[in-house]
Amino acid sequence: MSIKGLTLDKVYQASYVLKDVARKTDLIYSPHFSGKNQVYLKTENLQATGSFKLRGAYFKISQLTEEQKKAGIVACSAGNHAQGVALGATHAGAKAIICMPDIAPISKVEATKALGAEVRLVRGTYDDAYDYAVKLVEETGATFVHPFNDPDVMAGQGTIGLEILDQLDDVDAIVVPVGGGGLISGLAYAVKQLKPSIKVYGVQAKEAASMVKSYHQDKLVNLERVATFADGIAVKNPGDLTFSVIGEYVDDMISVTEDEIAAAILALIEKQKLITEGAGAVGMAAIMFDKIPLEGKNIVCLLSGGNIDVNILSRVITRGLVTSGRMATFVIMLEDKPGQLVDVSSIIAECGGNVVSVHYEGSDANMAISSCILRLNVETRDFEQIEKIRRTFEEKGFKLTE
Amino acid sequence: MSIKGLTLDKVYQASYVLKDVARKTDLIYSPHFSGKNQVYLKTENLQATGSFKLRGAYFKISQLTEEQKKAGIVACSAGNHAQGVALGATHAGAKAIICMPDIAPISKVEATKALGAEVRLVRGTYDDAYDYAVKLVEETGATFVHPFNDPDVMAGQGTIGLEILDQLDDVDAIVVPVGGGGLISGLAYAVKQLKPSIKVYGVQAKEAASMVKSYHQDKLVNLERVATFADGIAVKNPGDLTFSVIGEYVDDMISVTEDEIAAAILALIEKQKLITEGAGAVGMAAIMFDKIPLEGKNIVCLLSGGNIDVNILSRVITRGLVTSGRMATFVIMLEDKPGQLVDVSSIIAECGGNVVSVHYEGSDANMAISSCILRLNVETRDFEQIEKIRRTFEEKGFKLTE
Repeated sequence: MSIKGLTLDKVYQASYVLKDVARKTDLIYSPHFSGKNQVYLKTENLQATGSFKLRGAYFKISQLTEEQKKAGIVACSAGNHAQGVALGATHAGAKAIICMPDIAPISKVEATKALGAEVRLVRGTYDDAYDYAVKLVEETGATFVHPFNDPDVMAGQGTIGLEILDQLDDVDAIVVPVGGGGLISGLAYAVKQLKPSIKVYGVQAKEAASMVKSYHQDKLVNLERVATFADGIAVKNPGDLTFSVIGEYVDDMISVTEDEIAAAILALIEKQKLITEGAGAVGMAAIMFDKIPLEGKNIVCLLSGGNIDVNILSRVITRGLVTSGRMATFVIMLEDKPGQLVDVSSIIAECGGNVVSVHYEGSDANMAISSCILRLNVETRDFEQIEKIRRTFEEKGFKLTE
Repeated sequence: MSIKGLTLDKVYQASYVLKDVARKTDLIYSPHFSGKNQVYLKTENLQATGSFKLRGAYFKISQLTEEQKKAGIVACSAGNHAQGVALGATHAGAKAIICMPDIAPISKVEATKALGAEVRLVRGTYDDAYDYAVKLVEETGATFVHPFNDPDVMAGQGTIGLEILDQLDDVDAIVVPVGGGGLISGLAYAVKQLKPSIKVYGVQAKEAASMVKSYHQDKLVNLERVATFADGIAVKNPGDLTFSVIGEYVDDMISVTEDEIAAAILALIEKQKLITEGAGAVGMAAIMFDKIPLEGKNIVCLLSGGNIDVNILSRVITRGLVTSGRMATFVIMLEDKPGQLVDVSSIIAECGGNVVSVHYEGSDANMAISSCILRLNVETRDFEQIEKIRRTFEEKGFKLTE
């Protein structure tokens, strides 16, 4: 049976083509995340190029005719798709031009070039780069490799479904990150052809929930703006082909908040030693925050990618430390007299905290002339310890302002 | 052939016992780290409990008599060994008491308890906890499970060697983190029984290089103090059994600096999406900084564990960002006149930097009364961009103090 050009044959063909290119990524059982359900992690963040995107792009390019390959390939991407296309084109001996917005992190630009593609940096956003790419295709007759709205691309991503069925006997459900819908449509289609009882859930960031809205309103919904740090799934305009497949094969579409995504990233680091990007962690966020309506089932959580900017990672970790009680800021109003800093430091040391930074602010316009403010960042063990430090300050007569 | 009670039989037996307990962790080819050599990563950081330690501890406990199991198990550990022993004892139906120094991170204490062991927090350092554990063994007749100096423990760790031989046909060399020497002695012994041509290199942190020194001086060297953030391999007193095996089977012992370890952790995060702890990354540090005397070979880099404290991880990332040009601090001497902050902010924005924090410091004793200091932390792309910002400041007449 074919839907929108997608067939099981095609998924199997993709599987064969990808045999020596895509890693059959590990499926890892996670005791930590299991509880209500048994949770398994499909680690596509450990895929070559750091994301599943390679599968669809590579297979799509492999299906082009010699003539098409000669005419070249164009794609548009700020990230993971770029590297997949670059790798696929290089293997196929085709020239690829990847249009990227000039705000793309230099690491992704360099990684794409290293895989053999030409990169054109286009001033502006993803949409500007997209317009440029479309013009380029019109001018050159090259083939445009769409990041999701293409049956070959969907079939390539669907190979993950075949691997999961091979790796775990009793799969009850699969939880899948969704941007434009290429991954989930290929995967849901493939697994349901083989085992229709499997539930497939899609997850988006709440601030970029174009497919969630489309699914529930039963029509394509385009968004004016998207605002999520999960940049890999920040899609304003979902695909019409992917939308059709999702409408038929996906059991529900769910959204998660930015804080839930950040918590999932931190938990995956601490408990599983795995780096995921925002887009890669939305499925885990849905499981952690109990948004999957199942109990006692075998759930596969698809970690779709790990290409997170280290600056953002650093912020996610800091935020996670604060929200889990392992870092705290104390702001203390001090009288401007000798020995105060000694007293404050001693209290923190006695309570077992570790001062990481101190800022001393002199009097400002709103303060009594003889007082000042001390701001301390302290590494702590847990909320109990923070409370103990806070209480001791107050017992000793210090005034906390936050 | 047996050396110090270690036999190939025993390693195979351990392999069978661990079949359903230890994960056969993935061996991942890394194009990024390949160059001079082909580099493969054996991901024991993805092992259950986050470290290989489980293997040796579990096998050791499985070999105890029923009587010994009844008398209970005692171990001493600040981290990974604790969890391995706890899991092994619970499976064997034995009561385990783990002595931990009270400075151990609460997360490790909780993880050990969650695996079913009783935890005794001992005031002081690892050595204090060790003394307490020895006393406990004398009093109770329980069995002490040593973290490394025991043939059964070594045999358990050696199972990693069998897996590597099974996962990669043409292994030329294996690079292994070393603390007390349990892992490398078991592994080197096992692989060299089967394929003597394989080279095995051991790596320690320079500030805790007890086994490196022992190896090169050909006698057991104990250290007065160790000072590395790779706490998993901070061992003052290496084992005599492990020392003998290493002397016979290991090809060289190498040391790496704290900065090299931090760089390796960051590179593994960015390029491989894997979290390693300090101890887990020393092998990669040796490869990255070209300390392995090989070319054109297939090298397996053993990532031994991933249990890094998130506060430390956060610092490692920050340090890595600074040393790779993706975060910079500018300290500017300002005249105390209106509009200066606007000018400074504009320069950074125009150069494409992103200000993450600002500290404004009023005049201090050493400064002209009309001036002040502005300290800016800025996210940057690379050193080139930092230099551009610096140059622009100077062209516009601002005085940088750092």
